[in-house]
Amino acid sequence: MRPDGRRPDQLRDIEIVPDFLTHAEGSCMIKAGKTWVLCAASVEEKVPPFLEGKGKGWVTGEYGMLPRSTHTRSSRNTGGRGTEIQRLIGRALRAAIDTKALGPRQITIDCDVIQADGGTRTASITGGYVALALAVARLRARGLVSKEPMREPMAAISVGIVDGEARLDLPYEEDSAADCDMNVVMTESGKIIEVQGTAEGEPFERTLLDQLLDLAARGIRDLGTLQRAAIARGLEGRPK
Amino acid sequence: MRPDGRRPDQLRDIEIVPDFLTHAEGSCMIKAGKTWVLCAASVEEKVPPFLEGKGKGWVTGEYGMLPRSTHTRSSRNTGGRGTEIQRLIGRALRAAIDTKALGPRQITIDCDVIQADGGTRTASITGGYVALALAVARLRARGLVSKEPMREPMAAISVGIVDGEARLDLPYEEDSAADCDMNVVMTESGKIIEVQGTAEGEPFERTLLDQLLDLAARGIRDLGTLQRAAIARGLEGRPK
Amino acid sequence: MRPDGRRPDQLRDIEIVPDFLTHAEGSCMIKAGKTWVLCAASVEEKVPPFLEGKGKGWVTGEYGMLPRSTHTRSSRNTGGRGTEIQRLIGRALRAAIDTKALGPRQITIDCDVIQADGGTRTASITGGYVALALAVARLRARGLVSKEPMREPMAAISVGIVDGEARLDLPYEEDSAADCDMNVVMTESGKIIEVQGTAEGEPFERTLLDQLLDLAARGIRDLGTLQRAAIARGLEGRPK
Amino acid sequence: MRPDGRRPDQLRDIEIVPDFLTHAEGSCMIKAGKTWVLCAASVEEKVPPFLEGKGKGWVTGEYGMLPRSTHTRSSRNTGGRGTEIQRLIGRALRAAIDTKALGPRQITIDCDVIQADGGTRTASITGGYVALALAVARLRARGLVSKEPMREPMAAISVGIVDGEARLDLPYEEDSAADCDMNVVMTESGKIIEVQGTAEGEPFERTLLDQLLDLAARGIRDLGTLQRAAIARGLEGRPK
Amino acid sequence: MRPDGRRPDQLRDIEIVPDFLTHAEGSCMIKAGKTWVLCAASVEEKVPPFLEGKGKGWVTGEYGMLPRSTHTRSSRNTGGRGTEIQRLIGRALRAAIDTKALGPRQITIDCDVIQADGGTRTASITGGYVALALAVARLRARGLVSKEPMREPMAAISVGIVDGEARLDLPYEEDSAADCDMNVVMTESGKIIEVQGTAEGEPFERTLLDQLLDLAARGIRDLGTLQRAAIARGLEGRPK
Amino acid sequence: MRPDGRRPDQLRDIEIVPDFLTHAEGSCMIKAGKTWVLCAASVEEKVPPFLEGKGKGWVTGEYGMLPRSTHTRSSRNTGGRGTEIQRLIGRALRAAIDTKALGPRQITIDCDVIQADGGTRTASITGGYVALALAVARLRARGLVSKEPMREPMAAISVGIVDGEARLDLPYEEDSAADCDMNVVMTESGKIIEVQGTAEGEPFERTLLDQLLDLAARGIRDLGTLQRAAIARGLEGRPK
Repeated sequence: MRPDGRRPDQLRDIEIVPDFLTHAEGSCMIKAGKTWVLCAASVEEKVPPFLEGKGKGWVTGEYGMLPRSTHTRSSRNTGGRGTEIQRLIGRALRAAIDTKALGPRQITIDCDVIQADGGTRTASITGGYVALALAVARLRARGLVSKEPMREPMAAISVGIVDGEARLDLPYEEDSAADCDMNVVMTESGKIIEVQGTAEGEPFERTLLDQLLDLAARGIRDLGTLQRAAIARGLEGRPK
Repeated sequence: MRPDGRRPDQLRDIEIVPDFLTHAEGSCMIKAGKTWVLCAASVEEKVPPFLEGKGKGWVTGEYGMLPRSTHTRSSRNTGGRGTEIQRLIGRALRAAIDTKALGPRQITIDCDVIQADGGTRTASITGGYVALALAVARLRARGLVSKEPMREPMAAISVGIVDGEARLDLPYEEDSAADCDMNVVMTESGKIIEVQGTAEGEPFERTLLDQLLDLAARGIRDLGTLQRAAIARGLEGRPK
Repeated sequence: MRPDGRRPDQLRDIEIVPDFLTHAEGSCMIKAGKTWVLCAASVEEKVPPFLEGKGKGWVTGEYGMLPRSTHTRSSRNTGGRGTEIQRLIGRALRAAIDTKALGPRQITIDCDVIQADGGTRTASITGGYVALALAVARLRARGLVSKEPMREPMAAISVGIVDGEARLDLPYEEDSAADCDMNVVMTESGKIIEVQGTAEGEPFERTLLDQLLDLAARGIRDLGTLQRAAIARGLEGRPK
Repeated sequence: MRPDGRRPDQLRDIEIVPDFLTHAEGSCMIKAGKTWVLCAASVEEKVPPFLEGKGKGWVTGEYGMLPRSTHTRSSRNTGGRGTEIQRLIGRALRAAIDTKALGPRQITIDCDVIQADGGTRTASITGGYVALALAVARLRARGLVSKEPMREPMAAISVGIVDGEARLDLPYEEDSAADCDMNVVMTESGKIIEVQGTAEGEPFERTLLDQLLDLAARGIRDLGTLQRAAIARGLEGRPK
Repeated sequence: MRPDGRRPDQLRDIEIVPDFLTHAEGSCMIKAGKTWVLCAASVEEKVPPFLEGKGKGWVTGEYGMLPRSTHTRSSRNTGGRGTEIQRLIGRALRAAIDTKALGPRQITIDCDVIQADGGTRTASITGGYVALALAVARLRARGLVSKEPMREPMAAISVGIVDGEARLDLPYEEDSAADCDMNVVMTESGKIIEVQGTAEGEPFERTLLDQLLDLAARGIRDLGTLQRAAIARGLEGRPK
Repeated sequence: MRPDGRRPDQLRDIEIVPDFLTHAEGSCMIKAGKTWVLCAASVEEKVPPFLEGKGKGWVTGEYGMLPRSTHTRSSRNTGGRGTEIQRLIGRALRAAIDTKALGPRQITIDCDVIQADGGTRTASITGGYVALALAVARLRARGLVSKEPMREPMAAISVGIVDGEARLDLPYEEDSAADCDMNVVMTESGKIIEVQGTAEGEPFERTLLDQLLDLAARGIRDLGTLQRAAIARGLEGRPK
């Protein structure tokens, strides 16, 4: 039995509020239980230096945590962990988009953790996809982009082995007790974009890896349904 | 006629959601029109070095803006403006509390701007007071503090001269067109805690200063009623 | 009776040595009792990026303290307090000048505290005005600026309530004992450019604010006479 | 056919020179083709603050690249990429050691890239293991550690899909052309310590993941033989 | 003929005003022509970590330039040049003092360039010696130090080859045209504390080195007379 | 008798391996006993801003120490000492080259200390000269530079007084016991490029300075032979 009463293959309660912010071209607040991340897409009509003159666009991520998103207050400087996470977010979201079709513009996805209870990096990617899709849909609606840049929908989720059991979507309490912890970024149809698995205590067998990937694939499909609905609600509500 | 249809002496729609966050000892989300600030109070059982062994406590403020709180995205480094604002927040909130009665502990008030439309520093102080009062009430309820440390309720508001008219609670549009802009921190009964007034264009007459202070005093009284209600709702809802 | 024997409405002994430095386009050493600030105006024939192509100029301030300007040595990094003060200096001095008449050039006013005994930020503004006026007069003399950019003369002074008495131009000893402390930047005719008042202990009544502003206006007039004389001496002495 | 003529499942020429450095408690230069990393273990008889009084030790990694290790010179500040890699190195090497048996001391593994041609992070882990094992063996030989702290031998290797073929140990030329790139940290017996796989272009199928892990397991076994030999040579040569 | 009419072996007009500052334990303003450096000695009753418990004291230097000390304004961050100079100042002044006799206290000598016209580092050392000697004399007068810590008097001066002629005490104009430039720190009796010579253009012969050292020795003797007089005036004027 | 059995005027065993690195235009590993420095020359077809449009080139140096190059581990931030040394390296190597003949390109010489046992800055210059000469010879061979830019060969060495005896090429053990320590940069024919001498304890007589310079001149000549041989081997081995 999990601490919050969920089945091993069950996501936390997920809520995605599209267009949470007024100014951003696309945004959402994603809540996975007590983990809340505010994702905002900012479109700029310029590209980083290494892409100048290549006709392609760019998607990059930034990640931050509010000081009191955590159980005890942390300082504002997120240091190495934040850098690593924002590199992952950027890499993952670039797999969701055809940068040639996007054209010579940059979209920055800011993922700011309002409240943390495990799984902030995967919530950032899942919510970041919604913010990105909303921003891109508006570029298309305004005629700035002709060919659809969005590829197959994708999301991210954490899985792990806790008390000898493979479990989906770990909150902090389970995450800190897990023997093995994996973050999976996948397309809806189960193709892998990024997988990062770490043995927290003992090295683990490859059969476990397989179980965890099965579990992750299931969670990603469920997230896809929620993302799709949020994007639709956002596009109905506000033409921009 | 103001751009949003308000009377010159009318506040924007103010909403204060107490205990917005799970982990913080006290917190609130304050919304003044499209300006939203998340205020969180963190209590630590230690004091800064210069107060060690003096039996007194300390209240300090930190201020940040999410990158896409603004019309166009800003970088995460707030620089000099942020430093100046957080010094003001700390100074203002220390005037609201008897640090001897608080005892040897520090309360940090994090004010993070989720969305910005003018008046973020005054919303930070007004909301920061609510977060502080909630945290202190819980210290009292737990018997950690015996004498009431909170002094007379206080809040902060901006006032300015726009189109030759003294106006209360300026949004960004009015703020950037104001001839003179003042931030006032006051107690409910109208005593001054801090006043910062700046001529944006021409130096201004002292009679104008008086008009602006009258207007601010009125706004502060209205804010006091809302703060009081929010604190009461917070304390009913969650004993902590 | 004040510690140094002055009347409540009396300035400290003020000395302004114009053109203290050889290289600067305008400069002065201002001494207010034991507070000494070296102010230097540097003219550059370029403007900051946000003003490019607008035909207007810019005035900005920088503020520093020598490590042993203080009673005990401080480190060279002035941190937040310095940032806040230099923003104030820049804002105040920009009110003294018509940036259109100045034309597309930047004047940086460096205010470096040689010795500190209270009131360093107001001395910086008062002396900074002299350095700025000297530099601008030389631009005019060289025919680089045709319309007079200097507006009504201005200065800054501190006032405060010490032992229940409103006093002008507080040295460190009074400043640290004041119940309320205000820095006032005003034109010679008494118009307000910036006012920053802070209750150090108890919030204070608005009648006190009025008394303090009266006192400040008187000090500003006296400073104006001294500034005028220093500028005249500077311009006689050195054509540049 | 691979650019350097290797079979798909063949490592580059690997050379591990144990005790390359005089001062370090354990060290090696590891060369994998033209990728050369100098790994040095430094033992300190103290632990980081979060472990004080817990009787356990700590292993941490640092990673740097010499400016001209790369094709064109890079600046000395490695930024985010370096931070991410050194977090991986530390995590991986901690899985190779029983920190309780190590006792209250810290071992820092510095991995400095002398020359880079792909696979610097995996060479850092493989060589870092050798440096760590040498340093620990000397702690045991000096009687400072009684129970063996080293767990099952481990190493790291990169694998990827290039031209539709799964290949082991990618040099820069292949790495930059790979459709999918994975770094695998494994024990000699094939248990997973860390796996990080990224789709560079298209998301990839799970069957590919399996192929890549098989290939990695084979490379890790080969590396194990080389590591073992290098450690033995080091311990014969120098008692320390 | 030198640009300012001096003989090759003649110092610029030197003025040393002792106890220029009120708060510092010892200080002077040293003017060598248009080069002005403010030197302040700060005594602290503690030593740096590496000297704790050794019963010895420490002397360290810091060096800064005011932004408008130079012909055109420079930024406040002095970077590498400043670091190098302050290491030299500290090293040179430590040679002037017996740190055992000083006892377990640190004296920091701040050398801040008010106006620069060549030779700021040597003026810093020459003036720094005066500030240090004043501070030490007062420690002795207060009975805190029993054995005399000051060793043989010392000073520093620049010499160089300009237009084929060996010249003493180069101003900026000569310094920037010199073929070879040397800074010499010497005792009054001509013993070497530090010598730093650099060929600016062509490498130079050793006979030139000898000529320059002769010239420097002569300048150092003249500076010694001025330092001695300044210290005496300082000690007469103010017991402290 | 010296600790390592050398005569007072004898260099340590010196080994210079040319073209140690694959990617650099010129490089060498220089070993002077247990002091090992890796020197790499990087050619860029651009010049720093202050040389733009002047038709001249530039040579600059960077200096770093690997964390475990030293007896006990040091942090990666080399701070002031590193800055001072890299300024010296750049200045010294610029004296070895005619920057007009080099043409509008910059050569950066990275000197990274792999292992430290005294004399790292002089080994950096001696090895840096070899790396520079190799890179320049290849520019000439490729026809990019027509007139020979290399001037008279040069090198650097340390000398000092230990136990009352003038000694050449001090290892750490002697360096830390020296009464006087000097670094000399000279041409093969004995002309001075830079001399930096410091009295570590007592100020020293000028006759000692002469002895030390004689000793240095002798060492420089011996180094010249080794540098010449290394450059020849490098140019035979690899056309580039």
